[in-house]
Amino acid sequence: MIVGIDPGLARVGYGVISRGDRYPTPLAFGCIETGSDRSTSQRLREVYDRISAILDEHEPAWVAVEQLFFTRNVTSAMHVSEARGVLLLAAEQRGIPIAEYTPNQIKQAVTGSGRADKHQVQEMMRRLLRLQEIPKPDDAADGLAVALCHMNMLRYP
Amino acid sequence: MIVGIDPGLARVGYGVISRGDRYPTPLAFGCIETGSDRSTSQRLREVYDRISAILDEHEPAWVAVEQLFFTRNVTSAMHVSEARGVLLLAAEQRGIPIAEYTPNQIKQAVTGSGRADKHQVQEMMRRLLRLQEIPKPDDAADGLAVALCHMNMLRYP
Repeated sequence: MIVGIDPGLARVGYGVISRGDRYPTPLAFGCIETGSDRSTSQRLREVYDRISAILDEHEPAWVAVEQLFFTRNVTSAMHVSEARGVLLLAAEQRGIPIAEYTPNQIKQAVTGSGRADKHQVQEMMRRLLRLQEIPKPDDAADGLAVALCHMNMLRYP
Repeated sequence: MIVGIDPGLARVGYGVISRGDRYPTPLAFGCIETGSDRSTSQRLREVYDRISAILDEHEPAWVAVEQLFFTRNVTSAMHVSEARGVLLLAAEQRGIPIAEYTPNQIKQAVTGSGRADKHQVQEMMRRLLRLQEIPKPDDAADGLAVALCHMNMLRYP
């Protein structure tokens, strides 16, 4: 089982995938949202508490996290990195190994193109995971995508 | 009592200052160093565990943290921000209020100039805190400086 995480301070997308007998199976996905009326440290704590609960519930063999590779908006990158810090801490405290992929690697793995847009990623998640509808919001689809990306890497290294 | 923190992934400077009867008194200062042979998540956990122990030992009324304001080196900024995430989390989990200051605000507060160099900050910490020698390494002096900066703000808002 793999928990994939698309980090952020305002929104953390996550997806839980198990290998399944023949096809990867989505067990849970969603988006942790933190209120903008709260302080940064309060939001970090909420991210940490909620991801900790998800890791304790599913006890995954891996956590796969999207890596911030390059960005123009430095302030936003710093907040995403603060959230990444507490997400990585939660996994490390549980002894769960962590894999990291850049946005391009993830899009390449699940759509065949590193430049796919958000809707393409959602649509491919629907198909590859045999869902009735596209996973929403897009953060949740991104969480599933990084989990699926890592599952593919484990199968075809 | 105030714990001041200069965040980083490789080195976290800290300084603990109490108000004292007439003059601010340094109770402890130093630098948490994490090995570059360890993974990012292991280093984050070490930063978190060691700052948690310092907060539990001193039970400060405030934590003052240096804020990353602007930077050219985005990769380094992202690692510093990851460390800031776990440092803010440790304070938030203990219900300790957090104050944040930019490097310029801190240097201005303790040397009178926002463009002071590291040695000036160390020398002013020696004088203002009546130490026999300059606090070393410079990260520890920066930790003391952000604590002293916040003490001044509380006195002369």
